[in-house]
Amino acid sequence: MRVGILGGGQLGRMLALAGHPLGLETTVLDPGEAPCGAAVAAHLRGEYDDLGLLRRLAEWADVVTYEFEQVPEAAPAELAGQVPVHPGPEALATGRDRLNEKTLFRELGIPTARFAAVDSRDALKAAVADIGLPAVLKTRTLGYDGKGQAVLREDGDVDAAWNEIGGVPLILEEVVPFEREVSMIAVRGADGAQRFYPLAENHHEQGILLESRPRPADPREADAVDYAARLLERLDYVGTVALELFDAGDRLLANEMAPRVHNSGHWTIEGAETSQFENHLRAVCGLPLGATDPVGHSAMLNLIGVLPERADVLAVPGAHLHFYGKDSRPGRKVGHITVRADSAAELEGRLERVRRLLPAA
Amino acid sequence: MRVGILGGGQLGRMLALAGHPLGLETTVLDPGEAPCGAAVAAHLRGEYDDLGLLRRLAEWADVVTYEFEQVPEAAPAELAGQVPVHPGPEALATGRDRLNEKTLFRELGIPTARFAAVDSRDALKAAVADIGLPAVLKTRTLGYDGKGQAVLREDGDVDAAWNEIGGVPLILEEVVPFEREVSMIAVRGADGAQRFYPLAENHHEQGILLESRPRPADPREADAVDYAARLLERLDYVGTVALELFDAGDRLLANEMAPRVHNSGHWTIEGAETSQFENHLRAVCGLPLGATDPVGHSAMLNLIGVLPERADVLAVPGAHLHFYGKDSRPGRKVGHITVRADSAAELEGRLERVRRLLPAA
Repeated sequence: MRVGILGGGQLGRMLALAGHPLGLETTVLDPGEAPCGAAVAAHLRGEYDDLGLLRRLAEWADVVTYEFEQVPEAAPAELAGQVPVHPGPEALATGRDRLNEKTLFRELGIPTARFAAVDSRDALKAAVADIGLPAVLKTRTLGYDGKGQAVLREDGDVDAAWNEIGGVPLILEEVVPFEREVSMIAVRGADGAQRFYPLAENHHEQGILLESRPRPADPREADAVDYAARLLERLDYVGTVALELFDAGDRLLANEMAPRVHNSGHWTIEGAETSQFENHLRAVCGLPLGATDPVGHSAMLNLIGVLPERADVLAVPGAHLHFYGKDSRPGRKVGHITVRADSAAELEGRLERVRRLLPAA
Repeated sequence: MRVGILGGGQLGRMLALAGHPLGLETTVLDPGEAPCGAAVAAHLRGEYDDLGLLRRLAEWADVVTYEFEQVPEAAPAELAGQVPVHPGPEALATGRDRLNEKTLFRELGIPTARFAAVDSRDALKAAVADIGLPAVLKTRTLGYDGKGQAVLREDGDVDAAWNEIGGVPLILEEVVPFEREVSMIAVRGADGAQRFYPLAENHHEQGILLESRPRPADPREADAVDYAARLLERLDYVGTVALELFDAGDRLLANEMAPRVHNSGHWTIEGAETSQFENHLRAVCGLPLGATDPVGHSAMLNLIGVLPERADVLAVPGAHLHFYGKDSRPGRKVGHITVRADSAAELEGRLERVRRLLPAA
């Protein structure tokens, strides 16, 4: 079977790496000259809205998927009708737009912080009056790793925030105090079967994910599974999805969804019976899903900007390296490390050893 | 770091797949037009004794290794001096010749069945008189999967066996009744560190490996570790080695060694903390070795000749597919399946389900 992937970054790369043992051929479409996914997959080079290239991909592939939700709308529109595209258009339209996400969450009874669409300076002022401060103003699309966001703490911040990111469709979101950020990685097969990984606890710094750690049997897991299941059903979803939530102490508030494999699920490569990448491929290819049970105790550390010394990391028992083959650049995700151990205490000790080896980003 | 691999079959392919997450670039040298390893590594196409090609590989690579021990002697000879080659020339000269293997085992005090070199019909008769029957006549080099062997049960078989495979250097080996075949996969780093996987129990049919199953804490493990350690030290070995042994009930008899990753170690991809492929790469690249502890209970089934239905296998919990991307052909290893479970009983049930799905070879 042949799988086309829009995007040849590290997510496309790890999808392709998971595909080879399954006997799946993969081609990434990516405008880069040598995107890191091209080391392990065929590469069609060009823009995501190059209709001729999309047709070539559709002719070659049995199914097309994507590694990021910000693909130009022309791409899935052109592909649809020529080749199955999973996850489907509604999932993509939802996942690429924060307002659509929050609106769908509300429709499905999934709790969220309060929010309002903002399309003008006046609308921003009205939204601030309604929601109160502090609040966060965000671009509806194209934001990632904390980009395209402005925090409003007092009334005087309103104009500055508008000046900074106004002029594109925005959303204002209530800032709710929370104890931790968690994510639910779930997968739904073409036959409707659903699987859920243990809830993962995420630690961000400056908007960039630093660490993710599965917390099997977390007291909030049942709620997160419930919410993710509603999304999967409502979107007739096929593939892996990530639902990011805030744990506000007494309840979870859904923050955003990503209709794709997700950084907070990278620990599943060694830390779960079947990785999120393999399960995404199984789903979009119409194959049975694999077990999502944890294997030992694990956690993932992102490598931001620069890589540590390979030998130092590999000297730590249970440390598994994932270099993406990307050049170093401040703030760029260039790899990750998953640490696995037989007990929580052992994991903690190993994690601490690995953290000390990571260069400042 | 750049690793050159002589041979681009499934072993080269799985080495390359293990190399990408470590940030290692791999190039396979292989005469085939599209060997299955070339899907995940760069490919230099040509014969193994093509000196120009070997020089190109040596110039590109930081270290060269191989996926099979029958490389023409010209290859390591040409490479040596230009680039480090691991495992080294003595390991290769030993592993490619059954007489050299047995002679080294004897020298190191590792028990073997009785054996004698056979270079003529008369020498064969003398060896039979000395060793007795039954015995097996084997080519010293190039035999694999039961090829190049003739069993002698009575005196009348002597001429037939000679006529069948005589004319090349041979070895006659005593047939010793044994309870099971086992193998020790071990690895030694550039710094001399040694690691040993649990002893694996192997089931062959018609000379072809069908199943391998790690047996942690096997009563014979200590002996196998001792023997493998003697080999690693004596050969100043760097990389993964496989030592195949017969369990004769009261003792182990060494049968052969392979100076490379080995089919009976494929279960380590999911069934051990670090796979034999990753540990081979770590060793030849001078990196610290990874833990060889088992992860859950696992076993490997080879796929011979034809592939089963992907969806049927993936419906079995804990079943992990490894298709090699090779065309079907009777007797050809085209893939393997590793089954993992939390208990021995659960593993047995899953294995039985998978066995029923395998087409007759």
